[in-house]
Parts: sequence; C-alpha cells; structure tokens
Amino acid sequence: MSQNNRKCKIVVDAMGGDYVPLNPIHGAIQAESQSSTLEVLLIGDKNKIKKTITDEKLNFDESKIIHAPEVIDMHDSPTTALKQKKDSSIVKGAELVKEQKADAFVSAGNTGAMMAASTLLMGRIKGFGRPTIGAQFPTSDKKTCTLYDVGASVDSKAIHLLEYAIMGTIYAQEIDGLKNPSVGLLSVGEEESKGNKITFEALELLKNSKLNFVGNVEGRDILNGGTDIIVCDGFTGNIILKFGESFISFLKNRVKSYAGEGILNKIYALITKKVFKESLRDMDYQSHGGVPLLGVNGISIIGHGSSSALAMKNMILKANEMFQKGLINKLKEGREYYGNL
Amino acid sequence: MSQNNRKCKIVVDAMGGDYVPLNPIHGAIQAESQSSTLEVLLIGDKNKIKKTITDEKLNFDESKIIHAPEVIDMHDSPTTALKQKKDSSIVKGAELVKEQKADAFVSAGNTGAMMAASTLLMGRIKGFGRPTIGAQFPTSDKKTCTLYDVGASVDSKAIHLLEYAIMGTIYAQEIDGLKNPSVGLLSVGEEESKGNKITFEALELLKNSKLNFVGNVEGRDILNGGTDIIVCDGFTGNIILKFGESFISFLKNRVKSYAGEGILNKIYALITKKVFKESLRDMDYQSHGGVPLLGVNGISIIGHGSSSALAMKNMILKANEMFQKGLINKLKEGREYYGNL
Repeated sequence: MSQNNRKCKIVVDAMGGDYVPLNPIHGAIQAESQSSTLEVLLIGDKNKIKKTITDEKLNFDESKIIHAPEVIDMHDSPTTALKQKKDSSIVKGAELVKEQKADAFVSAGNTGAMMAASTLLMGRIKGFGRPTIGAQFPTSDKKTCTLYDVGASVDSKAIHLLEYAIMGTIYAQEIDGLKNPSVGLLSVGEEESKGNKITFEALELLKNSKLNFVGNVEGRDILNGGTDIIVCDGFTGNIILKFGESFISFLKNRVKSYAGEGILNKIYALITKKVFKESLRDMDYQSHGGVPLLGVNGISIIGHGSSSALAMKNMILKANEMFQKGLINKLKEGREYYGNL
Repeated sequence: MSQNNRKCKIVVDAMGGDYVPLNPIHGAIQAESQSSTLEVLLIGDKNKIKKTITDEKLNFDESKIIHAPEVIDMHDSPTTALKQKKDSSIVKGAELVKEQKADAFVSAGNTGAMMAASTLLMGRIKGFGRPTIGAQFPTSDKKTCTLYDVGASVDSKAIHLLEYAIMGTIYAQEIDGLKNPSVGLLSVGEEESKGNKITFEALELLKNSKLNFVGNVEGRDILNGGTDIIVCDGFTGNIILKFGESFISFLKNRVKSYAGEGILNKIYALITKKVFKESLRDMDYQSHGGVPLLGVNGISIIGHGSSSALAMKNMILKANEMFQKGLINKLKEGREYYGNL
C-alpha cells in the first residue's frame, strides 16, 4: 500500500488568519508535542514570529522558521496576489510542497489565494479536473454528511461531480474510517426525472461508477442523515454552506431578542443556549480544524480566518494523517478504480 | 388603477391535501364568514364533499359544489396526470379560471400538477417566460426575505431572474405593503466578479432595470435580513428551501435526543421548545397559508399538502386580496416599467 513511514514535514502559515502569528505558533507547538511523526516549519515574517516566541516565552526551534515577508490579506484578489506577492507565506508555502521540500501546507489565510496557489503550484492530480472542498454537516442521527463542492469552483460540470464523489469516498474511507460510504446527488427530487442539465448527466456517470451511489437526494437529506457524501456544483454548495452557517446566528439573534423581554425570558434563554451548545457540540468547527483542498497534487489544508490554536493544531494533525495514510496516492488509484477508467 | 370592485369568485380544491375534503371545506366556510368580498366554489367529488358537510353538520351552499370525480394524487406525474385526468379537481379548477368562470384557484394538492395545470391552462403573462414561486424566510431583524424561484422551474436563464425580481417587487409592494423593496442576486460573493454564467448575465440585466437592486448577496443574507427579495435559479432555490425546512426538524431531533438523557435535560428541553416556539412564531407556514404561482395569467395559489383549515382560509383570503388589488394587471404593467421595455 501507499502508506508513508517517515516524519511528515508540514509548512504552517504563521501569517494567515485573524490571530497571527500567535495561534499558528501555538498550534504548531501543540501538534509537535502531541505527535512524534510530524515536524512543523513556520512560514511568515521571521522577525514577527521570533518576537512573538520571545514575548510569549514559547519554545520553538528558530531554524524551522522560513522567512516570507509579504502578506496576502483577506481583501487581496487571489489571482493578483499570486502574481504580485511572490514572497508571501501562501505562495512560498505552496512552492515548498511543489518542490518536495515539504509534505503539506496548512493556512488559515485568504481562502481564494490558498486555493489558487495550491492548484497552480502543486498542480492537479491526473483525472481530477477541479479541486474540491467539502463541508461536514452534522445530521439528525448524530453522524455527518459531507457536501462537495462548497465553492472551490463555481463552474462544475457533470464529470466534476463524479470526481468529487470519488474524492469524497476515498477521504471518507481513509480519514473518517467509513466502510463503503454512500453517495447522493443533490437535486430537486428523488426521482431520476427531477433535476437540471448537470444532474441528469452526472446521474448517468455516477450510476455507471463503482461508487456506493444511492441516487438523487434533496436539500433536506443533508441534515436528515442517511447519506455520507452528497455532491453538487460549487455554486449551489457554497450558498448552502453559508446559508447553513447563518441559521445558527439567526437562532442566536432570535433567542437574544426573546431574552430581552423580561427576567423569566432571560433565564429561559440561558437554558436554551445551554441546550443548544450541548446538543450541537459536533458543529464546533474549531475542533474540526480546517478542510483539505482535494484534487491538488499535494496536501493543502485551508482553515477559517478565526482559527484558534486548537483549530490550527487539528489542521496540522489532519495534514499529518493524510500524509501518513498516503492519501494522494489513494486518490490517484481511486480515480481509476471508481471511475471505471 | 386596476383594482377590482366586485366579489371574487374563488375555486377551492376540496380534494387536494392530506386532510380532505374536511380542511378545504372548513377553510372555505371560515373565509366566507370573514370576508364579504369573496365567494367560494368547492371543486371535487361532489358526494364526498356533501357527505362531509352532512356528517360534520356544516353549513355550505351545495349549489356551489362543482363535481370533479377524478383525483390527482401526490404520486402522479404532473404531465401524465394532466393528460389522463381531465375530470380532476386540479384540471377543472384551472379551466374555470381560464374560462373566466372564476377569478382564482386555490389547491393544497399535487404541487407539480397545480403548477403545470395553471401554466398550461391559464397561460403565462406576456413578458414572463417562467412562472415562479417564492418562499418567505424570517430574518434576524424580524422582517422577511422572499426567495424566488424555489422550484417552479429548474432551468432558469438570466432573463428569468430579472422577471422573478420584477414579480417579487410588485408582489411585495401590493400585497406585503413594502415601499421600494430591495432586490439582491444570490451568488457566491458580494463582489461583482463572483458568480457563475447565469449570475454574471443577470447582474447586468438587474443593474439596468428600474428595480431597487442592491447587487450580489450571499447564502447568509437570506436570514441575516436587509434584503427584501433575493432571486436565484429554481434549482438552487428549491434546495435551499428544503434544506432550510429540514434545519428545524434537525434541531428538534437533537433537542429530543438531549431530553432523553435525564430528568433535568427533559425540563431544559421543554423550556427550549417553548423559547423556540415563541421566538420563531413567524416561521409557522400554516398562518401564511400557501404561495402564489406568479407569472401565470390568473390567480393560482398552491398550498402545502398538510394545510390546516386555517392555512386553507388564509390561502383563500390571499387569493381575494390579489384579486381585489388587481395584481395580474399590476404585473403586466410592471413588466414594462421595471424591465425597461
């Protein structure tokens, strides 16, 4: 098999995210102390990183800091930034993986720039036309459903939906430990006659694959459970993801306004918040860390801008797991096997 | 202006929905007693309707029952049903509006058949290529956001998104009483550079219209508030609607399972349910009733299969309001005005 049996060298973007370089440094130190099979290289403004290490009295080997003075911030246009900021942590981090000087790259910086740098510099795995990002939703039956693609590309064609399904299946098997994960195609009805041009074509491709394809599913099936992986075009997926995230804020706002209507309401609202928190524990993205960009020829993990030290640590551990399990090779093999090539 | 000043004759499908003919009959009686500007014709199996009226000791003028012995049920394919069940309540009801023997048609029956019958028999209003259905979402700021299209057509083109926006604007002004409602275009980012082929094209059409267009909005903006109307293709809209509906069931399931973990949890869960109910009062679709199919040349209101008598009543009152305010003519005029024709 394609497992790796050496230390995984992980480049961590010290400048990417809202709390930098502190959270990436903390995450790196915690990950290294938790796992003996990885080592972290911090990339970013060397002086800033060193100063934070000194100020916070942290312990991190300075020889593993790689200087990248430029910063791509959240407002930079990805394509322009890649051209103009060649000395940025995101461009140099992706380059290190491309040049095989590192095995993985982890960043909570500009998502678009991270996707573009990873895709352009690491390249794509043969047979995967579009890289993809999945979002893991909690389900009523306390399992998860991962939706691909949630926005790595907005112009997905039918063949890309098949490719997302293959990548999602291999990831679910290797990393989430699922046996024979089920795959659904997101549409407007369960009947094969329901859908649009892309889903009709994707339906045939999925039916003819070796995947555990269960047919069309609907919007409600994401949270209802029963399907491990659901695929859709990146435009639809991105809108669902953002709509879903806003549902929690919406509820919090409503409960907050309810709380303002009297002392009893205030107590009830506090209890409701507690029940929420405990029943929706698995929705905490900080504990998940970031999400891998699948389909690129290297390990690339993208985190939320507000990533905590815990989230950074979990992203680093996830990168290591993907490396140790040889995920890139599994994806290469899986493309041929499941896609009937 | 185009207001109507006579009694609105509303055909109500007595066979459409899960609780028939009881709920449609109750809804009809309640609506007639509440408003003196409408009269209801019940359509369906005359014997069944008469039997229910007798059994339940209800008071409804039997001369206003129109016999339609066939029933299109929830499992019938809409197009096949229209051809084969010409004596069904849905086909005959839409025909009555077409033949101007009635002013509006209300049904909680097979949604696809209702859309197809209304579109094919009543015809489309000139300038509206695709009829549309909107879904009203509650927002964080306790207003609403109506999303068009949520599934009347899955192959929307850019021009149809403009048309949805025009219909939504006129409906919001005339029926919801909003002044100068704002319109957003659902996309994957607020920047004009974000989107897919359809949104890029729709963006130009919307910018060049006389609508109060605020630009691209994202999935989170549906619930966040601030935009009265959001337009998207019917495929995306239908998936969002069903995903959103399932969110509430998901939360209920989670809270139910939390309640099972002990007596204190059970009490907390009961309080949470109460807080939910009171903070989300405006999400109760029974009080809204059904949704109009806009763009067809007649008033057609489609209800949820599980519509209560209250929901049926509200649908009938909604149909009457649309009639009394001359909505169909307003739509005709609005298409020219807002679309710069």
